[in-house]
Amino acid sequence: MKALVYKGPGHKAYEDHAKPEIINPTDAIIRIVKTTICGTDLHILKGDVPTCAPGRILGHEGVGVVDSVGAAVTNFKPGDKVLISCVSACGICEFCRKGMFSHCTTGGWILGNKIDGCQAQFVRTPHADTSLYPIPEGADEDALVMLSDILPTGFECGVLNGKVHPGGTVAIVGSGPVGMAALLTAQFYSPAEIIMIDLDDSRLDIAKRFGATSSINSADGNAVAALMKMTGGRGVDTAIEAVGIPATFEICEGIVAPGGVIANVGVHGVPVPLHLERLWDRNIAITTRLVDTSSTPMLLKILKSGKIDPKRLITHHFKLDQILDAYATFGDAAKTHALKVILDA
Amino acid sequence: MKALVYKGPGHKAYEDHAKPEIINPTDAIIRIVKTTICGTDLHILKGDVPTCAPGRILGHEGVGVVDSVGAAVTNFKPGDKVLISCVSACGICEFCRKGMFSHCTTGGWILGNKIDGCQAQFVRTPHADTSLYPIPEGADEDALVMLSDILPTGFECGVLNGKVHPGGTVAIVGSGPVGMAALLTAQFYSPAEIIMIDLDDSRLDIAKRFGATSSINSADGNAVAALMKMTGGRGVDTAIEAVGIPATFEICEGIVAPGGVIANVGVHGVPVPLHLERLWDRNIAITTRLVDTSSTPMLLKILKSGKIDPKRLITHHFKLDQILDAYATFGDAAKTHALKVILDA
Amino acid sequence: MKALVYKGPGHKAYEDHAKPEIINPTDAIIRIVKTTICGTDLHILKGDVPTCAPGRILGHEGVGVVDSVGAAVTNFKPGDKVLISCVSACGICEFCRKGMFSHCTTGGWILGNKIDGCQAQFVRTPHADTSLYPIPEGADEDALVMLSDILPTGFECGVLNGKVHPGGTVAIVGSGPVGMAALLTAQFYSPAEIIMIDLDDSRLDIAKRFGATSSINSADGNAVAALMKMTGGRGVDTAIEAVGIPATFEICEGIVAPGGVIANVGVHGVPVPLHLERLWDRNIAITTRLVDTSSTPMLLKILKSGKIDPKRLITHHFKLDQILDAYATFGDAAKTHALKVILDA
Amino acid sequence: MKALVYKGPGHKAYEDHAKPEIINPTDAIIRIVKTTICGTDLHILKGDVPTCAPGRILGHEGVGVVDSVGAAVTNFKPGDKVLISCVSACGICEFCRKGMFSHCTTGGWILGNKIDGCQAQFVRTPHADTSLYPIPEGADEDALVMLSDILPTGFECGVLNGKVHPGGTVAIVGSGPVGMAALLTAQFYSPAEIIMIDLDDSRLDIAKRFGATSSINSADGNAVAALMKMTGGRGVDTAIEAVGIPATFEICEGIVAPGGVIANVGVHGVPVPLHLERLWDRNIAITTRLVDTSSTPMLLKILKSGKIDPKRLITHHFKLDQILDAYATFGDAAKTHALKVILDA
Repeated sequence: MKALVYKGPGHKAYEDHAKPEIINPTDAIIRIVKTTICGTDLHILKGDVPTCAPGRILGHEGVGVVDSVGAAVTNFKPGDKVLISCVSACGICEFCRKGMFSHCTTGGWILGNKIDGCQAQFVRTPHADTSLYPIPEGADEDALVMLSDILPTGFECGVLNGKVHPGGTVAIVGSGPVGMAALLTAQFYSPAEIIMIDLDDSRLDIAKRFGATSSINSADGNAVAALMKMTGGRGVDTAIEAVGIPATFEICEGIVAPGGVIANVGVHGVPVPLHLERLWDRNIAITTRLVDTSSTPMLLKILKSGKIDPKRLITHHFKLDQILDAYATFGDAAKTHALKVILDA
Repeated sequence: MKALVYKGPGHKAYEDHAKPEIINPTDAIIRIVKTTICGTDLHILKGDVPTCAPGRILGHEGVGVVDSVGAAVTNFKPGDKVLISCVSACGICEFCRKGMFSHCTTGGWILGNKIDGCQAQFVRTPHADTSLYPIPEGADEDALVMLSDILPTGFECGVLNGKVHPGGTVAIVGSGPVGMAALLTAQFYSPAEIIMIDLDDSRLDIAKRFGATSSINSADGNAVAALMKMTGGRGVDTAIEAVGIPATFEICEGIVAPGGVIANVGVHGVPVPLHLERLWDRNIAITTRLVDTSSTPMLLKILKSGKIDPKRLITHHFKLDQILDAYATFGDAAKTHALKVILDA
Repeated sequence: MKALVYKGPGHKAYEDHAKPEIINPTDAIIRIVKTTICGTDLHILKGDVPTCAPGRILGHEGVGVVDSVGAAVTNFKPGDKVLISCVSACGICEFCRKGMFSHCTTGGWILGNKIDGCQAQFVRTPHADTSLYPIPEGADEDALVMLSDILPTGFECGVLNGKVHPGGTVAIVGSGPVGMAALLTAQFYSPAEIIMIDLDDSRLDIAKRFGATSSINSADGNAVAALMKMTGGRGVDTAIEAVGIPATFEICEGIVAPGGVIANVGVHGVPVPLHLERLWDRNIAITTRLVDTSSTPMLLKILKSGKIDPKRLITHHFKLDQILDAYATFGDAAKTHALKVILDA
Repeated sequence: MKALVYKGPGHKAYEDHAKPEIINPTDAIIRIVKTTICGTDLHILKGDVPTCAPGRILGHEGVGVVDSVGAAVTNFKPGDKVLISCVSACGICEFCRKGMFSHCTTGGWILGNKIDGCQAQFVRTPHADTSLYPIPEGADEDALVMLSDILPTGFECGVLNGKVHPGGTVAIVGSGPVGMAALLTAQFYSPAEIIMIDLDDSRLDIAKRFGATSSINSADGNAVAALMKMTGGRGVDTAIEAVGIPATFEICEGIVAPGGVIANVGVHGVPVPLHLERLWDRNIAITTRLVDTSSTPMLLKILKSGKIDPKRLITHHFKLDQILDAYATFGDAAKTHALKVILDA
């Protein structure tokens, strides 16, 4: 089969690769129908993710059709259409029992990281019964690909952890794909204000079409002052960090109101200064989270109800064998305005 | 009357001072029966608390007898015995309605800070109806002084924010008075393990008598490794920071288990490095809080039930006119082994 | 002044009455601008509310202008526009501190019940600082009247207690004013389905325009079977009882899914059979609540944000001196299709 | 092998029975070391549990040694010592993902009910990986048998659902085994008062030794008045119903304070009158629950820490082949004072 293979920092290839096979009785082999590229894949390609060794097929998102299942799989059979979760969960270990699938002792985020992933014609998914979801009749497959990772990440790490609530005030720092996913899913809880902060006016325009009530371009370095003015000096109940660098995290520290939450979504590479000399008495919380995808069943219900349109995140379509072009487009988002791309296998 | 007055960084005096008078109709004047000294008073004396101007009477803890009340006070009358809360709460503003009395727009921690405090023969308490508590019949006044600040601080900022729970594993970094208060009140929730971390073996010994299940002397700089070994590599569900310096906060960052909480209690003067490059995917929370004393009614009930003995925190007794000696004893805790001192007025 | 006075079961009069005066220093006198009639007023007129004695001015909802304030009122001054909460809260007692204003030991629902109410030119509001809300600039007064009682009741007793959540399934039994208020406010949480159940097709049609995703006319006695079919045998996560009779409560018992909640909103006059022989192992909760109006600040924010249009509940407008006509219209809702009426003073 | 077999209402036999075999790849066969008898077994024998057909081996509690495992079992191997949970959980279905194992679509309480149970030399346990727990080194097996059902039932259905909290006031109606289990585990949360209500003075005496702070003998029909007097007219924050008949549930309705919870634990056979005419405005919750055993990992930790001694519930010991005597003793608790009996296989 064909697959996109990580060849070490700075290198990738779309090449022939052996088709995966069942290893454990709880595995399934899925024929990929649609997949996509994640910002994390770009991190891997930069060499920033040491758990991912050269030779690995990338990708941890997609929908597909069950090709074969191990002897212990009870929920799925060949021919079933499925949504692949970016997180594999055994359902047995201490963490899975708490719904913290991200820290499953034999799973977590392993697809396209510690084991071969979804940017291929076939993928092996471990713990199939607890890591795949049946696709509802008539569902839109493009929309569903957004439920593998980007929507649950924005929702769980940003919106749920951030305790977004009716009438509340939310700021989202970073309007890339995951910031936009937080923006779309924050609206499940009817906050009164959602203020989007980014360096790129075109993304801020999109954010407003997606439901942001106002926006701040932080290029001038005065985002904190601008937001405090906008909120009458009060700050925000929820500050969602969706970039992953000290500068944006410090904006969040500057704008969180007493009693508020900073919900970190960004993947960070270096420490950030935590201004406890100002924050120790502010009654705030700071949260971190690797997505658990524990919200996937809920997101499937809400997708079915029509209360969210995840396809708004999709800007480009490619065939799987155009994946190198897709990477180029996705990697140059400032110019291409790409958010999420869909790859048809 | 006599009072302990802050005279600017490094200076204090026990001297004559005008007796306070009712200013607002919601005020009460309390004749102090017992008061104490807080670590925060030492911070003020170092010049670290800019809101506290020279000339201020210090102290924000105590029990007393109502001397007079303003026209709008309905819950108290002259002669009533009362517990003084370190936090004044109007009960009206947005923050008070949420139970976040620490951020009351006309109150919060103002006693012995922005207005004259309790280390005196009399004190004016604003918002009396919502900032004083009637003393239960037959209650022990020494024990009650511990409910003005130290116990609710350890409990709210450490135990409640830290989500201490039955069967959980707790580490408390710092075994000074507030760490000890967290230790005593953590036991309300029956954690399986409470590990005390400090530099001072004599305090660690006391901690074990107070209910710690084990202890680590962090003087060798290997507290993180020692704790991880003690917990089988798992870390703790709750790490309570009860010192207020980067080194101890970083211990907390090193020992918190996935899904755990770092509950900051310490008063910090400088930023701390937040290692998001390691913590972004650990599903943790970090909390800060100025005590709200919203738990005072509960603490009064549990005190009455005999399930806690706050007097264990009291190491020394003085008369109010010995307050300079009391400060010397309290300020040299390494030598005197002082935790809390009681001053009888 | 003129006022609507309860004259004993079955009798009322719109007549001259002495203007109210300040009694306690925390009182305010409000000149009524707009008021309305509540289903509870009809209960009083039937003689079903023994706490309400003949001679009482009815009404517990409205907006007005502060006419005078007691000496201890700090938040309001003559001339301020205010929203009157149906619940008076001292902000001091044990219940108020928990946000359970409905059980305030010197307040709760007393307006138009234990003390004279709002269907008059003037009303005395006790505990003014904690029972009135400043009206935001430019706010729609008709809409605001809906925030005195009907919207917080539907929201707190139905939606919050019922734990309505994104993707969830909700049934509301009873599409009178409070059922409709629950319907409007349930949408703050983006449930996937809201099924309205009532005997009256015209109200069910309105419910669909207000956001119900489907409806069941229960006139044939088969509502439970119809709902279970509609939900694939699963039942609902939230069943909101908004009528107050055994038959509708038993529908809720029949349709609640394992793990679900029955949130009672209705005012009941007789016991209902609780089928614990079927429900003991269903992991459900049943909740009751007198509205606390603790959600009023949130509702004011969400009203300002435009995310709800409470005026949809208003079907009729009258002048205050037409209040007897207004009662006739409101009391004959089956024929007049009245939901809420507005009375301009 | 030998087993206790239900032979239809009123009849049971201890007789030869075929040894169970692996049916599904997720099954395990356990050699029973210790088991016990539950009140539910008596219900079955009365013919009150229609899901349990004649011919069924009874029993759903015990510890044992793994004899063999199916091909998909990964956590256990022959020779492992295990605790058997009374609830079987697949870990896959919608309910298991929410931690509501009691409603597992292919499990729940099936042992000794819909499939053969533990009062035998061997038992087949379905979903072994998610329904068995490894026994900690050196653990007391008698104590562990209490973790199969009685302790998690008292804790989850009574204490957790009842929101028992530090300083709170709890009443437990019924001091049989499950009431006593609620009493022991309620103390995890340090309530200020635990009031035990029962008809039997000898059980009330035991309750006081187990930690009840006071007791009421309800034989005179005045339990509600006695409790209200004892609590200064306030009632209790948590009322735990641990009997399962209307009279005891109505006591709970009479004693619950505003804002409190009635946590039902009892298995009911007939409807109870719910006095909504008095309770509709009391802001209470009523909860029901079939135990999920989701608290078993926590209970294992707390058992290991020594903070609970479940053996206090054990009054009698028998050999498995004395099981008919054990049933006679357990079934005549009024005379024998039996709480839990241990059967050694």
